[in-house]
Amino acid sequence: MEVVRRNFKDTLPLISDSIEKADFLSIDTEFTGLINGRDVSIFDSPEDYYLRCMNGSCEFLLIQFGLSAFYWDEKEKHYMNDTYNFYLYPRGRPGPDRMFLCQSSSLDFLASNGFNFNKLIKEGISYMTALTETKLRESLTERQQTYGTREKDPVRIPDENKQLIEDICAKVKNFIDNTTEKEMEIDKCNSFIRMLLFQELRIRFKDDVMVDTKILENKSRVLKVIRKTAGMSDQETMRKKREWDELEEAVGFSKVAKMISQSEKLVVGHNMLLDILHTLGNFFQQLPPDYNSFKEFTHCMFPKLLDTKYMSSLPPFKDKLGSSVLTELLSTLAEPPFSIPKVGCVEGRGYSNLKDKQHEAGYDAYITGLCFLAMHAHLARMRGDHSERLVPQSATLKPFLNKLFLAKTARQDSPYINLTGADPTPSRDHVFHLVFPKEWQRNDLNQLFSPFGAITVHFLDETSAYIGLERREQAADVMRALAKNARVTLTPYYKYKSYGSGDAEMALRSDRAKSDTYKLIAKTEMKSRQALTRSNLTSSWTSPQARQPLPQKVSRARSNSTSLTSPPVATRKRTSSGVFQVDESEPLAKKPEISPSPPENPRTSAEAQRTNAEATRTRAEPTNGRKKTDSAETGKKDTVTKKKDSPEQKKDKIEKIDTKKDKVIEKFDSKAKSNCVTAFKESDSWD
Amino acid sequence: MEVVRRNFKDTLPLISDSIEKADFLSIDTEFTGLINGRDVSIFDSPEDYYLRCMNGSCEFLLIQFGLSAFYWDEKEKHYMNDTYNFYLYPRGRPGPDRMFLCQSSSLDFLASNGFNFNKLIKEGISYMTALTETKLRESLTERQQTYGTREKDPVRIPDENKQLIEDICAKVKNFIDNTTEKEMEIDKCNSFIRMLLFQELRIRFKDDVMVDTKILENKSRVLKVIRKTAGMSDQETMRKKREWDELEEAVGFSKVAKMISQSEKLVVGHNMLLDILHTLGNFFQQLPPDYNSFKEFTHCMFPKLLDTKYMSSLPPFKDKLGSSVLTELLSTLAEPPFSIPKVGCVEGRGYSNLKDKQHEAGYDAYITGLCFLAMHAHLARMRGDHSERLVPQSATLKPFLNKLFLAKTARQDSPYINLTGADPTPSRDHVFHLVFPKEWQRNDLNQLFSPFGAITVHFLDETSAYIGLERREQAADVMRALAKNARVTLTPYYKYKSYGSGDAEMALRSDRAKSDTYKLIAKTEMKSRQALTRSNLTSSWTSPQARQPLPQKVSRARSNSTSLTSPPVATRKRTSSGVFQVDESEPLAKKPEISPSPPENPRTSAEAQRTNAEATRTRAEPTNGRKKTDSAETGKKDTVTKKKDSPEQKKDKIEKIDTKKDKVIEKFDSKAKSNCVTAFKESDSWD
Repeated sequence: MEVVRRNFKDTLPLISDSIEKADFLSIDTEFTGLINGRDVSIFDSPEDYYLRCMNGSCEFLLIQFGLSAFYWDEKEKHYMNDTYNFYLYPRGRPGPDRMFLCQSSSLDFLASNGFNFNKLIKEGISYMTALTETKLRESLTERQQTYGTREKDPVRIPDENKQLIEDICAKVKNFIDNTTEKEMEIDKCNSFIRMLLFQELRIRFKDDVMVDTKILENKSRVLKVIRKTAGMSDQETMRKKREWDELEEAVGFSKVAKMISQSEKLVVGHNMLLDILHTLGNFFQQLPPDYNSFKEFTHCMFPKLLDTKYMSSLPPFKDKLGSSVLTELLSTLAEPPFSIPKVGCVEGRGYSNLKDKQHEAGYDAYITGLCFLAMHAHLARMRGDHSERLVPQSATLKPFLNKLFLAKTARQDSPYINLTGADPTPSRDHVFHLVFPKEWQRNDLNQLFSPFGAITVHFLDETSAYIGLERREQAADVMRALAKNARVTLTPYYKYKSYGSGDAEMALRSDRAKSDTYKLIAKTEMKSRQALTRSNLTSSWTSPQARQPLPQKVSRARSNSTSLTSPPVATRKRTSSGVFQVDESEPLAKKPEISPSPPENPRTSAEAQRTNAEATRTRAEPTNGRKKTDSAETGKKDTVTKKKDSPEQKKDKIEKIDTKKDKVIEKFDSKAKSNCVTAFKESDSWD
Repeated sequence: MEVVRRNFKDTLPLISDSIEKADFLSIDTEFTGLINGRDVSIFDSPEDYYLRCMNGSCEFLLIQFGLSAFYWDEKEKHYMNDTYNFYLYPRGRPGPDRMFLCQSSSLDFLASNGFNFNKLIKEGISYMTALTETKLRESLTERQQTYGTREKDPVRIPDENKQLIEDICAKVKNFIDNTTEKEMEIDKCNSFIRMLLFQELRIRFKDDVMVDTKILENKSRVLKVIRKTAGMSDQETMRKKREWDELEEAVGFSKVAKMISQSEKLVVGHNMLLDILHTLGNFFQQLPPDYNSFKEFTHCMFPKLLDTKYMSSLPPFKDKLGSSVLTELLSTLAEPPFSIPKVGCVEGRGYSNLKDKQHEAGYDAYITGLCFLAMHAHLARMRGDHSERLVPQSATLKPFLNKLFLAKTARQDSPYINLTGADPTPSRDHVFHLVFPKEWQRNDLNQLFSPFGAITVHFLDETSAYIGLERREQAADVMRALAKNARVTLTPYYKYKSYGSGDAEMALRSDRAKSDTYKLIAKTEMKSRQALTRSNLTSSWTSPQARQPLPQKVSRARSNSTSLTSPPVATRKRTSSGVFQVDESEPLAKKPEISPSPPENPRTSAEAQRTNAEATRTRAEPTNGRKKTDSAETGKKDTVTKKKDSPEQKKDKIEKIDTKKDKVIEKFDSKAKSNCVTAFKESDSWD
């Protein structure tokens, strides 16, 4: 089913139910572009691959998310699917006004495949990272505390506006005294006049009317004067409620992403690296520049991932499949020796047959699930297992789990990122960096290497390329033969990377810091001075070089989103009204040197902490607010639950068990390899 | 009328006619965002303003252009309008695959006002800068010269593909021998197989069929095998023609922009600074980081600009207009003492009445023209002139010409950029830079300054702001009083700018160099090694610091677009087949030191020139290929025509009159103040 802004809130319980009952989920996403800047090279390592994608892809916008939940129908003995196709568009207010990149060819491609951009922009569901959400919640809570204090310090009405204000007040007086209508509108006022009217009408007619802003279809604003009636909540309460509702709407799809993460279900995708990067970066947290942190972060958020493109690249599928392009894979898998298992759906909740809705994220997620089921069934049959139902933790699936396919380097023996262990480290002894004259074409290169057999060429620019030998044993001969050639410069790949690319990779990492994300936030900041410091919002990952050892003892705030680890920040909890309250934590043990002046008002403590956070350059924690259902391990509510660690890994970890009653601790430790520490509190779940 | 991809080519002659007959043109544009990064401050100088906009706006995409041509109906004695609303979308291939920024709130705003994004992406007309166009023409010419040479060096068919190729060749053989159909399609081949088939089918069936690629609605590609018939052009000629047609389509709207520029007609806009920046930067040339170059460049491209927002901000309009927002301006001007003159239109060619099509660029351009006519008529009546027809060079309009309104600084006495003279230099003696404690709010600032009267505040971040005093004479007292205040740091504005912002402005300029434009190009380059060097495409303006004196004598290529000035580049001319040919120019007098190796093939000369161009870091020349109709001044065809210079300005200019018969010289000298040197040759006009 299609989910847009209008039906999102009502659909959330259905989505939650679908995820809950599913044996596995399959996903697909669409974005506004693929890569900005230099693309991955065919000889890149998994780490290079990640860094290129992180730098080149993350400024594009995720605009559609397909989610297919496959659940078992015990009576009919086959799978059913609930499939959702979400149009996603973060539209600013109260969220940040996003700046994002588009690639003209990508939009062209999507439009040709029926993507509806008008629907996207008008009806897309909003989203934001967990960090932004936390900050907005804090900032709104803070701002709402100032309501009611404004009247004490009214703005003087400039002489030139006095007559207009008087005229409008007279109209409102007339509305109150001489009519019975519920509302009146005041239009054609600029923002300054609206502000003056807010103030004046409140002073003069507080007991009779409430004043509110109404945004018209064309985005212009008018004032709405509403007659007060018995039993009506007061203006401030209504306004606060509306602001929280708006914030919830702006958080939007991030809630679904969290549900998926919290479910810890098997998540299947086809060629899913970019899907995962966008999912993490848009709904959870900016991607880390450190590769190992990324692997951990991903595994923490999605502990069971399976890439059908990787699966199809291995025996017994590899030789039987002509192409692993999704639709072609599906049609091959529909014919012997394979078959697509029967999958049903409840009317209106999923797909029931194969229609050509290719490149609609929901449909692609659905057929990814079908391909997965077909391949799984084939493997099971080979093992003599004829049960149709899948066991996500079965040995059959184990070789494919948590490996993200690397389409562009797979043919050069670097076929995946292994999220839970070491990556393949294929030899690059047969690869060289070559500098050649500008006028040379591909044929000139072939000719140069013709004595040594065929070559693979990856052009870097007009005068340089990586060259891979097909006859790898020729590497030494090539080096010897071409060393004397004055027109070219040949350097072994590793050597070139070690002096050339050490810098380049650093540049890749620090590129991130200069990225537009900084600029994006700037505007929001300027507009709302009560908002967040830039460093908090964007510098949540520091480069490995910049890392300082973590303080041994830190008290960590519970969050269902993300916050800085240390030093301690205020404890927040959601009250029954849906409002997050900020309880100030204990004073800091040590004040940083650069603190500008002693704390003087209630905001100062949190500010000093921010300053301290900047000074000590701590890492941020990505969390998913995951609901751990296996908290039995700790035997105790409100304490840390962690997965089994290897002894070495345990050594690396420092944890403080926070015993405060209403806190839940979550930790993402990027030094520990592939471990998550999460905790769970019933009242804490998202919906 | 609405102009999209489908009807663009057929509409071009109509547009040309409209521009030709018009007394004046009015324009409006829509973009995907307004500003990225820090916005203009209310105390900014015109130069600051320009730099902020240049850096913050130019990565957004121009997506709609409205053009309204007002021409006089002598019989009916009133104006008529031809109005065009162009949807614009540069879609890559053969143009560059554009990366562009969007601002989520801007798209939201456009969608709310009925902007059709599906139409934009599917039917938008392409465009590119003149520099890109030149390079693409050169590159295509070069590539086409290699056609026919490829067969000599065929690609070996890998064993695994042999059977497939044989099967398909058999099918084609059957098509040739046993059917009478004109075409057959070969689908489901990847690009490698298509390449092999191109080669094999050509070798085997050259005399019977032609092979072409066809792009389907969903962007997938199939091969088309076409039976040869008598009188059919050969495959290569057809392919070349198609490639030139595609290039012409990709140049697209830039042709209209050039027509407007070449017409030298009065161009009217409302709050037109961003319209002008986008028009110049997207259709002509990347904006220069040097402010004076920008002023010159703009004046050269559009010698008569008029901003109705500026006009309405001056007497006699200022006090009579409540708001200068376009639609409100229009409704005020419809009432006494003003009136909107009658404006007609030929059915289907323009607007005939006022419908609420606000924020459609065509409509906004039209009502801008109406407002202009109403204000002009009012001024004329005040002078006792009751003729309805406008004289663009009349004294009435002179005070308003070539001044771009600066909406955000107008209230601080910096209301415009003067394109043909010095800008206003209002005092900033009453302005201060203030650093204050983080917890301070606006009220705290008001209180701090309360002994000195009201203040204007422009927040820079959480702890700093510019403060302007309303009682300007208090400046010295303020400085004295607050110097002792330990909680704030007050610095006079000029002092702050001189040490703080000197650097900042440099950063603004060099930001440009690091901008995404670089990345954008990278991909195109990687894909087509025959394409252009990055430096040529993007570094067309160098910073004033990097400038070297120009060589005194340079031979300059004629261009109807843009090319590097010096050193000499190849002479291009368009042949009757629409193909640009490159005649190599005379060898370079002096070879640059860094030239890697002696010229060895026909491409080398041009390459050496590129290298030389980089080495000497010359400036680029923006040109509009403007058709000068007043070339009588020089009395001689094919020589330089220049506008009247002041004696000082003349001194600054060095010109070489090129006497070569088939060359047309255009010069944009950024050292000369507000002068253009243009030349004209009949056969050189664009359409």
